[in-house]
Amino acid sequence: MTTSNCSCCSHATTPQKQENVNGKADNDQLVISSDPEHPANLICELCRMFYNNGWVTGTGGGISIREGNNIFVAPSGVQKERMVPENMFVMDLEKQEYLRRPEIYKPSACTPLFLSAYTMRNAGACIHTHSQNAVMVSLLFDKVFEISSIEQIKALPKIVEPGNLWYSDKLVIPIIENTEKEEDLTDSLQEAIREYPGATAVLVRRHGIYVWGETVWKAKIYNEAIDYLLEIALKMKQFNIPTVKPK
Amino acid sequence: MTTSNCSCCSHATTPQKQENVNGKADNDQLVISSDPEHPANLICELCRMFYNNGWVTGTGGGISIREGNNIFVAPSGVQKERMVPENMFVMDLEKQEYLRRPEIYKPSACTPLFLSAYTMRNAGACIHTHSQNAVMVSLLFDKVFEISSIEQIKALPKIVEPGNLWYSDKLVIPIIENTEKEEDLTDSLQEAIREYPGATAVLVRRHGIYVWGETVWKAKIYNEAIDYLLEIALKMKQFNIPTVKPK
Amino acid sequence: MTTSNCSCCSHATTPQKQENVNGKADNDQLVISSDPEHPANLICELCRMFYNNGWVTGTGGGISIREGNNIFVAPSGVQKERMVPENMFVMDLEKQEYLRRPEIYKPSACTPLFLSAYTMRNAGACIHTHSQNAVMVSLLFDKVFEISSIEQIKALPKIVEPGNLWYSDKLVIPIIENTEKEEDLTDSLQEAIREYPGATAVLVRRHGIYVWGETVWKAKIYNEAIDYLLEIALKMKQFNIPTVKPK
Amino acid sequence: MTTSNCSCCSHATTPQKQENVNGKADNDQLVISSDPEHPANLICELCRMFYNNGWVTGTGGGISIREGNNIFVAPSGVQKERMVPENMFVMDLEKQEYLRRPEIYKPSACTPLFLSAYTMRNAGACIHTHSQNAVMVSLLFDKVFEISSIEQIKALPKIVEPGNLWYSDKLVIPIIENTEKEEDLTDSLQEAIREYPGATAVLVRRHGIYVWGETVWKAKIYNEAIDYLLEIALKMKQFNIPTVKPK
Repeated sequence: MTTSNCSCCSHATTPQKQENVNGKADNDQLVISSDPEHPANLICELCRMFYNNGWVTGTGGGISIREGNNIFVAPSGVQKERMVPENMFVMDLEKQEYLRRPEIYKPSACTPLFLSAYTMRNAGACIHTHSQNAVMVSLLFDKVFEISSIEQIKALPKIVEPGNLWYSDKLVIPIIENTEKEEDLTDSLQEAIREYPGATAVLVRRHGIYVWGETVWKAKIYNEAIDYLLEIALKMKQFNIPTVKPK
Repeated sequence: MTTSNCSCCSHATTPQKQENVNGKADNDQLVISSDPEHPANLICELCRMFYNNGWVTGTGGGISIREGNNIFVAPSGVQKERMVPENMFVMDLEKQEYLRRPEIYKPSACTPLFLSAYTMRNAGACIHTHSQNAVMVSLLFDKVFEISSIEQIKALPKIVEPGNLWYSDKLVIPIIENTEKEEDLTDSLQEAIREYPGATAVLVRRHGIYVWGETVWKAKIYNEAIDYLLEIALKMKQFNIPTVKPK
Repeated sequence: MTTSNCSCCSHATTPQKQENVNGKADNDQLVISSDPEHPANLICELCRMFYNNGWVTGTGGGISIREGNNIFVAPSGVQKERMVPENMFVMDLEKQEYLRRPEIYKPSACTPLFLSAYTMRNAGACIHTHSQNAVMVSLLFDKVFEISSIEQIKALPKIVEPGNLWYSDKLVIPIIENTEKEEDLTDSLQEAIREYPGATAVLVRRHGIYVWGETVWKAKIYNEAIDYLLEIALKMKQFNIPTVKPK
Repeated sequence: MTTSNCSCCSHATTPQKQENVNGKADNDQLVISSDPEHPANLICELCRMFYNNGWVTGTGGGISIREGNNIFVAPSGVQKERMVPENMFVMDLEKQEYLRRPEIYKPSACTPLFLSAYTMRNAGACIHTHSQNAVMVSLLFDKVFEISSIEQIKALPKIVEPGNLWYSDKLVIPIIENTEKEEDLTDSLQEAIREYPGATAVLVRRHGIYVWGETVWKAKIYNEAIDYLLEIALKMKQFNIPTVKPK
């Protein structure tokens, strides 16, 4: 078993105890790479970052990256900031069969949701966080979150046509209702994706957010830009400033 | 004397001055280990993390880990982010006698509280923080803190039966009154543990919180998930949203 | 291709993928240096810092440094915390021609704004952030942001005469209206610079802030001091305390 | 010229440009040491920490440590997170003459205030921050800041007799009025020290706080504990909870 690359912060590199991992049988070569841009390495690196932002504490949230037909997913219920590449599940997107399935872990309950972004939008990565900004916005808005005329909106894509939103465009993110089990969100998430063809994210009420993009970096940028907008929307609410600028 | 493992952040690794430590007599072999998962190492690592979260600043708070019949406790009144393994007390849980007691330190006043979690709940670790979210919630709630229908609740255990809480379950954490001396909390803490068999934490009014779990990692995850819920409860209060979702 | 100097945080040093970079033709010697104070290195270092402050997340914001007649500018639309020196554009200030222009990137839309600070104020560096404090203040103030009688004001220069402001002096920062395209801000930014000869910064409504200084370190200090004042002004507003102390 | 010890975060170790430093003449041996606990090293380390807490951004704030009859003080107007030991001034406390005075810097305007803590209270270190919590509390309280019945109070000393405050004791910190020049605070600071013999800190309205202690570590702990209490007092104010618990 190897550890992740960061030789700096010991708390981030302590590998999680893995008893009875059947290395070879589990196709280690799919997840072990010295390339820091390998999906299994990136998932670990980004989850440490998300953890430091408070987005995936207490084992919440997750991320999946697609490389060609292979999708990489972090396991369920583990500390997201302490993962190592060996923890990753790998699935064949077309056959929807696991190419690698560490025996001691359960697959992420988010998997069908991540798959929806891959199959319906041809995404390259999908991020799921329990961001408190997302949860609070879901408590203060009804069917959709809307904001306009904040410069940061320009970091987000139009989706329905090439290019990004303009400053005065209205960003609209649908909000779906939470369910007892994460996998039961799949239907309403897919419905929201169909109903809002310009959305690159879906908020889940009292739960968090799903954000996807063409590549892992675009997904990361969209997630950051959206969280910035959710945060500033909450501050605007506190000062009774409408989030959609009146014409 | 050795120092902790992190070779990165000098402020975190500077060992605290220890004059007159009688190394051998103090059973150093109980606390010196190259295994980063050794309780004495983990206590140092986690306390640095808790410090960065603002949970144990100003020498406040602490953590204890049990390994078999040995319990490891950080000393009283020291900077929690600057501890080294040599600072640790080790106690025989059954005999409640110290196996290692660094002469220059006082044992933590939390010790009888940690012991309550070990003896009454068979905990593997117990975390105590002065989290401002915990203090604020204790000022805004009466006998118990209650919250329901937030996804993060699912990170917490039912205790009275196997498995975790569901999304719409109500998390209930008892709040006990603070006392002038920390050890005088023991009786009311034990009473709360008996009265709330499903609780994995007890809030102490105007003081902080005690959180325990079957292992150190579960205790850490529970503490993170609870602090997330305390924080979002405060935000909900600011927007006049009830923390328990009306049916 | 080399990477940046920091050997610590892997996520900060992963170079961004650069296909088809024509190294030599692109005058690499202008940006590759082992001196950590070289403008190309400083831009990377400071942007990582600004990112950690939440000022340039989601590819927002940027910074430019002038060294003699050469100005260094980060590219448009890249993750500001992941830049490496090879990403930098270099422009001849007098001729306003690029000396180095990485083919795969677009020049920053901020470039004409940075140039305004260089030509109109002989600045040595100009920082642009999407600071939420700046955006919020721009929503709560009309034509200018004003604050007086806060010690931190003394970190800021008088500009119209040598030396810094005094404690009870009133700091005035003009607020200009945002435009759909960043480059279209140039006219109103230049007008604000002319109209407020004592200003070392301009706020852009619903967008962020531009701050400049005689050197990169002064620009950094001014930006920090101003953001501190914007933040405390928001807190004062929440408690209904006027930001300009009544006589 | 040597650099500080941290080999990790490049932005923290870049030495500030020092032209014309007359090394030998400036008594370098007073500040160059491989001992991380040497005052000149500790000042640099702690200031980096204070900077990350937002207490000394924009060159604000400072710290002084006494070792026997020598007092070490950081220079005026420099970036506190980027100092190196060579930047330090050293003064003979009894003679109040400089033993080391780097020519390119100005002595800190805080020096007479630090001296007050040394001469009137026999302090071992004195910390000055521009903490926003301190500034906000100074805007919401009149002559003194008062808080009682918060556990963190127990981290603070009684001063007038041995030992620390109890949980239900009232912590009282005097607030003095700010002046245009920092050194002009000396008289009112000394008056406050005389009038409040139990105080280990003085708040300066619209400015910040001075905190001292018998050793550098006690000063650090007191500053942390007080800032925690200032922060929670502001939160209590937002929820209209009195900071002094009614009997």
